[in-house]
Amino acid sequence: MRTYTTSRHGQPNVSQLHYARQGVITEEMKRVAEREQLAPELVRSEVARGRMVIPANVNHVNLDPMAIGIAAKCKINANIGNSAVTSDEDTELEKLTVATKYGADTVMDLSTGGGLDAIRSTLIKHSAVPLGTVPIYQAVQQVDKVTDLTIEGFLEVIEHQAKQGVDYMTLHAGVLLRFMPYISKRKMGIVSRGGALMAEWMMHHHQENMLYTHWDRVCAILKKYDVTVSLGDGLRPGCLADASDEAQFAELGILGELTLKCWEHGVQVMVEGPGHVPMDQIEMNMKKEQEVCHEAPFYVLGPLTTDVAPGYDHITSAIGAAIAGWHGASMLCYVTPAEHLGLPNLEDVRQGVIAYKIAAHAADIARHRKGARDWDDAMSDARWKFDWNKQFALAMDPERAKEKHDATLSHDAFKTAEFCSMCGPKFCSYKNSQDVTAAWAKYVAETGAAGGALPESILAAKDSDVHAVIAAAAANHAPGELAAQAARERQVERKAMLAQKG
Amino acid sequence: MRTYTTSRHGQPNVSQLHYARQGVITEEMKRVAEREQLAPELVRSEVARGRMVIPANVNHVNLDPMAIGIAAKCKINANIGNSAVTSDEDTELEKLTVATKYGADTVMDLSTGGGLDAIRSTLIKHSAVPLGTVPIYQAVQQVDKVTDLTIEGFLEVIEHQAKQGVDYMTLHAGVLLRFMPYISKRKMGIVSRGGALMAEWMMHHHQENMLYTHWDRVCAILKKYDVTVSLGDGLRPGCLADASDEAQFAELGILGELTLKCWEHGVQVMVEGPGHVPMDQIEMNMKKEQEVCHEAPFYVLGPLTTDVAPGYDHITSAIGAAIAGWHGASMLCYVTPAEHLGLPNLEDVRQGVIAYKIAAHAADIARHRKGARDWDDAMSDARWKFDWNKQFALAMDPERAKEKHDATLSHDAFKTAEFCSMCGPKFCSYKNSQDVTAAWAKYVAETGAAGGALPESILAAKDSDVHAVIAAAAANHAPGELAAQAARERQVERKAMLAQKG
Repeated sequence: MRTYTTSRHGQPNVSQLHYARQGVITEEMKRVAEREQLAPELVRSEVARGRMVIPANVNHVNLDPMAIGIAAKCKINANIGNSAVTSDEDTELEKLTVATKYGADTVMDLSTGGGLDAIRSTLIKHSAVPLGTVPIYQAVQQVDKVTDLTIEGFLEVIEHQAKQGVDYMTLHAGVLLRFMPYISKRKMGIVSRGGALMAEWMMHHHQENMLYTHWDRVCAILKKYDVTVSLGDGLRPGCLADASDEAQFAELGILGELTLKCWEHGVQVMVEGPGHVPMDQIEMNMKKEQEVCHEAPFYVLGPLTTDVAPGYDHITSAIGAAIAGWHGASMLCYVTPAEHLGLPNLEDVRQGVIAYKIAAHAADIARHRKGARDWDDAMSDARWKFDWNKQFALAMDPERAKEKHDATLSHDAFKTAEFCSMCGPKFCSYKNSQDVTAAWAKYVAETGAAGGALPESILAAKDSDVHAVIAAAAANHAPGELAAQAARERQVERKAMLAQKG
Repeated sequence: MRTYTTSRHGQPNVSQLHYARQGVITEEMKRVAEREQLAPELVRSEVARGRMVIPANVNHVNLDPMAIGIAAKCKINANIGNSAVTSDEDTELEKLTVATKYGADTVMDLSTGGGLDAIRSTLIKHSAVPLGTVPIYQAVQQVDKVTDLTIEGFLEVIEHQAKQGVDYMTLHAGVLLRFMPYISKRKMGIVSRGGALMAEWMMHHHQENMLYTHWDRVCAILKKYDVTVSLGDGLRPGCLADASDEAQFAELGILGELTLKCWEHGVQVMVEGPGHVPMDQIEMNMKKEQEVCHEAPFYVLGPLTTDVAPGYDHITSAIGAAIAGWHGASMLCYVTPAEHLGLPNLEDVRQGVIAYKIAAHAADIARHRKGARDWDDAMSDARWKFDWNKQFALAMDPERAKEKHDATLSHDAFKTAEFCSMCGPKFCSYKNSQDVTAAWAKYVAETGAAGGALPESILAAKDSDVHAVIAAAAANHAPGELAAQAARERQVERKAMLAQKG
């Protein structure tokens, strides 16, 4: 229970960014430092710099604070929520349970059907992870048609949800009227629900985006509750053909501008990104956001690396998400097997979460984040020891791993067997390899041979070539390089910041 | 039916490589050219150069020839086959049917249980895709224990399977006795079944790898039937901790040596690769093989990018496979959800094949292979038109896509509905975006505004910044660059080859 937030009520700015800039290490920062195995001062400095956010509404009392940013481990978000066509409050609560059970770091309630307030307050009450929303959905539900939307109505919804305890909100403030010509050139127009709604309103009234023009008022509300802004990418590409186009990057430029405005207000902010991107454009997209949006944490949706596999978009997008995380995305929004086809059910949520935990963890490993590979090494050790129960316990989805193993060899005796049904006992490579290692040890003991000291006849040819290959490979492969670079960058930033503070 | 192969029987060398070097464009090459939309002469030159293989045993009469190589589209292989613990002939035939239905380009029969000859001949008879095997499995089944293996027995099995019509064979000839010390340093030793068996034999007899020492005799058999060699990576890493280590690259050096020997014999050859590799080491691994193995096609297993998700290794590895294909791997060996846990069932085979079709297609797109994205564009068009039946038809797995859609909206009326259950009618971004586009067109027609010609007030600020962002992004992003480079390389190689031929 975050009882410590009560003293903050009524203050004009209670954001983590605000405290961090004052040099205060909050309870939330301490908890983040503990979970990430980082120094509390590093957490504070990253939050102050805007490169890390801790979405933690002061009214979300049962939150276990977590952080999103390049210095922290890569995070994943699970979208849940109903539509007018299907689902209800109980189902959404079940989805929350499944999503967090399998490791979702945050959850977004994207409900657009009925009972929005009830679903949202139930989810906040039961969630220890940050809850995000897209307030335009409720704002539009409260009027007859989207064109009836007013800024007063919109701000009312934002404040209402902020009071409820929503930790972060997607706001599509970068979809500007002057970008509409770019949309007409696209194969798939606007595929962001919020972006399309904003554009409808703008085109109808021939007025600029109301969130953009009233951004100061938005920030003034959010900082009272410490709601983190998630700058929505209303113009994200909806297919490979539209990736990295004018519309996308034009909006990104505005998101960079709004990022600075949030920081002026002392409001925490992250930036949302695509969507659908071919593999060879992902790294460029990550670097572009870092550059244009001043290193605000990047929160990407996938991206999908091909459009042709509906029913398997958790996989088409986990590929892109892993690459995105590797190149610097701080949070990956999951995509489920139901994407493009319907609302996800509980099993879809589970599949989506696991696919994204895989992507995020693969990214942590590729970035050489401290200790990331320890989990993998523990699994490898359990495999080598034929400790099946430990393998299940260490698995991302223990039930599924056990179920698959037991499908062919269910008896308890096989939990210590030195084989599985894939190879059977005679062909198990682990077992056979262990015999080889034992034979080698015996040979060394008997002959006194050490290292590569084998009979002359065997050692003869080509060894110099082999070592040349290894040396060349080692030269190309610089583990830890990225991590070292990130550390250097942090160092430079911190010095600059300290200098500024004088 | 390949009736045209009968005239080749009894010739000392009937390999595609042999014919290609003589300037002959075979029926197989013509068919490959047609399937790949490449010029027949390009196919011939790539085969002659050894950069493309067409695994096509003269005795596999119902084969539809296909190619594996950098100039062709990225391919996938599905492993099937029984073990001593489970499965039979009928099940394996069903797996073949499922694998090829969903798009496996080749199939390997890895059976190690009983009835090996019957299963193999049934599979060859029913398969229009190349069938690969690992002959050591049968060689070991025919003796009491692996240490009883002799080169005569091994060669007999190879010739027996070649006569049956096996199109390619994995032979672990690069596992050498002098590499055993490297194995002892590993977390997981030897995880290749064939590699571990060879090592057991070698350590027991203290003799060099019998395939390595008798490689000329192996080649002499294979060229009579045009069996393509798949140089097994017996020392591939079995976990992230062992990736890119001495053992792996020492063997790779030997595989490069054996590649040249195959080419001396006029035998087609490809090279097998890892296994388990962190994302940041994959590109280096692909380039290393191209360099060390003289651009022989690289055929990789995954690689898995994390070890901690048994039950989901089709996903952990599809991420690695997509990146590998992007950086030049020519064929991706699938991994199923059953990996590390047991023998795959029919649904596992389906899941593995689809995950790998996604990886291979994403790689084709990222490499800018000609026409690769047309399929994606057709899907995007069908989505934009709300043509649900066409979306299902275009999907990699049409049944699964339809099933997921129909789970919430099964009535036929919804096959033309302008929404799905994800958003419902009011919040469908496609629909709303189409309204925006229509409104924009109306505005242009009414006001005569064209391009970005919007009212002064809207066009005012920041547009120069936005265009700077777009220009910078465009400069970084060079689509087609990789493809252009590959084309240039081919050109240089072809000129050199033609010059050599005089």
